[in-house]
Amino acid sequence: MIIRQIHVTPVAFRDPPLLNAAGVHEPWALRTIVEVITDEGLSGLGETYGDLGHLTKVRECAEALVGVDVHATNEMYARISAIVGDVVTDMHGLTGAATQEKSIDRVFAAFEVACLDIRGKAAGVPVVDLLGGRVRDAVPYSAYLFYKWAGHPGGEPDRFGAALDPAGLVDQASMLIKEYGFASIKLKGGVFAPQEEVAAIIALREAFPGVPLRLDPNAAWTVETSIQVGQALEGSLQYLEDPTPGIPGMSKVAAEVPMPLATNMCVVTPEHLPPAIAARAIGVLLLDHHYWGGLVRSSHIAALCDTFGLELSMHSNSHLGISLAAMTHLAAATPNLTHACDTHTPWQNGQDVVAPGALRFVDGAVPVPDGPGLGVELDRDALAVMHEQYLACGITERDDTTYMQRFEPAFSARRPRW
Amino acid sequence: MIIRQIHVTPVAFRDPPLLNAAGVHEPWALRTIVEVITDEGLSGLGETYGDLGHLTKVRECAEALVGVDVHATNEMYARISAIVGDVVTDMHGLTGAATQEKSIDRVFAAFEVACLDIRGKAAGVPVVDLLGGRVRDAVPYSAYLFYKWAGHPGGEPDRFGAALDPAGLVDQASMLIKEYGFASIKLKGGVFAPQEEVAAIIALREAFPGVPLRLDPNAAWTVETSIQVGQALEGSLQYLEDPTPGIPGMSKVAAEVPMPLATNMCVVTPEHLPPAIAARAIGVLLLDHHYWGGLVRSSHIAALCDTFGLELSMHSNSHLGISLAAMTHLAAATPNLTHACDTHTPWQNGQDVVAPGALRFVDGAVPVPDGPGLGVELDRDALAVMHEQYLACGITERDDTTYMQRFEPAFSARRPRW
Repeated sequence: MIIRQIHVTPVAFRDPPLLNAAGVHEPWALRTIVEVITDEGLSGLGETYGDLGHLTKVRECAEALVGVDVHATNEMYARISAIVGDVVTDMHGLTGAATQEKSIDRVFAAFEVACLDIRGKAAGVPVVDLLGGRVRDAVPYSAYLFYKWAGHPGGEPDRFGAALDPAGLVDQASMLIKEYGFASIKLKGGVFAPQEEVAAIIALREAFPGVPLRLDPNAAWTVETSIQVGQALEGSLQYLEDPTPGIPGMSKVAAEVPMPLATNMCVVTPEHLPPAIAARAIGVLLLDHHYWGGLVRSSHIAALCDTFGLELSMHSNSHLGISLAAMTHLAAATPNLTHACDTHTPWQNGQDVVAPGALRFVDGAVPVPDGPGLGVELDRDALAVMHEQYLACGITERDDTTYMQRFEPAFSARRPRW
Repeated sequence: MIIRQIHVTPVAFRDPPLLNAAGVHEPWALRTIVEVITDEGLSGLGETYGDLGHLTKVRECAEALVGVDVHATNEMYARISAIVGDVVTDMHGLTGAATQEKSIDRVFAAFEVACLDIRGKAAGVPVVDLLGGRVRDAVPYSAYLFYKWAGHPGGEPDRFGAALDPAGLVDQASMLIKEYGFASIKLKGGVFAPQEEVAAIIALREAFPGVPLRLDPNAAWTVETSIQVGQALEGSLQYLEDPTPGIPGMSKVAAEVPMPLATNMCVVTPEHLPPAIAARAIGVLLLDHHYWGGLVRSSHIAALCDTFGLELSMHSNSHLGISLAAMTHLAAATPNLTHACDTHTPWQNGQDVVAPGALRFVDGAVPVPDGPGLGVELDRDALAVMHEQYLACGITERDDTTYMQRFEPAFSARRPRW
């Protein structure tokens, strides 16, 4: 099964004004959809980031992969490594440092997922079966809460409403749990002063007793602040995500707080693992196949975490259904991924490039799609609309900070901030 | 593709009197051949150890795997874990400590390889393509030298002749290199006093200038002796294998000798990796899919080694062609397996359960078999003969020590010995 053609299509979809330590989500979120087509006419789907620097590399690599067998992922990785070459950075920095290896892994992942989709279709099995088979029939996800404005400035309020204090977050959580059945809650923090976010977690704990809670300030705090918050929230958090920047800082915090620390910022590529393990900086790795080099490389990392006693959860950026399907297949095949995964699905608000029906939430979990491969199909009309939106929206790089500064000129994304 | 039936067949084949720290190889080497058959009539092959305790578990697990899909390796692993339960030990101890996880992994591996063989056949691709595709078209192996007697006591001399001093080993190496084209040499040591084995390495270095050399005394030496030998062989060894028992001892040696230490004894299961890495005990891991849980789990370990800067080579026990095929597919798909692998193939002396033709050595390397799956076929006549040999030979557990003591009653396999 030789790759004959690859279509690379950037898309944009409407995104609510979700607040974070870097600023606020712009009105449009970007993704890139990859469609790999073989000489036998089978096609497979991948989804990745839409930022221009990355998109440019994806396009260059797509040309270089024509003629390669869909099984030959080592060969694909070598070709992509030769093209990506240097470090491709994000403007937002919310998934940690950019490195050369991570830059390569991010490009490779989209093609790898698409090739697994093809291999699954050819074998008549779901992708989960190419990763060792399911250890769970449905993958639990968490309610991913954001502080947010009622709507984008100058626009209509969105259906989710404002959430700028504990009561607003409790309302948001109630809404998401009612609609999706989530049984875990994650709060994106780093937006307001730490004591306000502590109050929010305590309000959530009281409103949802027994529901595991997580707080992720995206490294907005100093070591001292992180220790204070961690100690103040003893007994209230399943884990605390990236309270402070860097492995040395995380290590200092980890030694003083009662809950495990999780990360998708200080450990984002294999080379970060040895120093993080040696420094006992983290207890939970938030896996994300989009930058850990696809599903098979993510399963290598999952095995490594099992060997070193690190727990696993899963990280999410704004994404569409191809990514949700890939995340679900990976998580379903990963025995030690025992925490509910993150997803931005609710904020997608029904927009998607995949045809409806294959993906659904039941009690906060996504049943593994039954169809062969990823089990999702491209909705070509939706793809065309979203591509037009990409062309029209004027955004080519996610930049939460500059967008925030249009409304709060004094805003700084400096981390740590508190 | 559901498993409908599994045949488990113990076999025995003639083995020369190869000396090692545990004693001497008995006249018959044991293996177990596993044949998995699906409801669609596809069959796949696996090969594992023949010792009775292990064989008994393999047989029990074979029954428990009927009805499982060949992709569902997570499910197979769970079922095997429930059956193996306790620790299954070897009498010889040449592959390190037995642990529960290793006991499970050893049983699982044979079935996993057979299922990959089936999956490859179904997809029309070689197993290497299920592991990421080839990064090399042929896998280099090393000439595996043994001190040996001319023949088993009371029997005819074998064609390899005696090798009990440096000259004998140089002759043996010349013979193996002439027949197979090997470009690396490994000497199994731990047989004679360390200064004699140092002299053997120096003789090999002089006879084969530029050919990488390795010495493996199977932990027969104290820390002090290991350091002396390592320093005496500065510039002569590519790596020194398991000079002394245990991670703490290896760590002390590693700090004082100029070459990397390799192991297939102190790190033989995932739980050994964190302490060995923390103690900087090893520089090279000798991977062996037979006890690292099959090909996919071995690829996880290979990725972990890459992450932690450990080099890779491959370990071998006496084996037949199914194992050689599996080793070759794994090694061909593993980018960081850059050292020539070990194999006992020459000592097999043409005996095999696989039909001739699929496996051959070209310049010391085995070209990856082209056929789908492992690319080898069972020779049912040969299997029947070897099974009869198993039933007749009277050996059910490899026991090099007791066999040695029949001829040298004072022999002790105590390690360290020098």
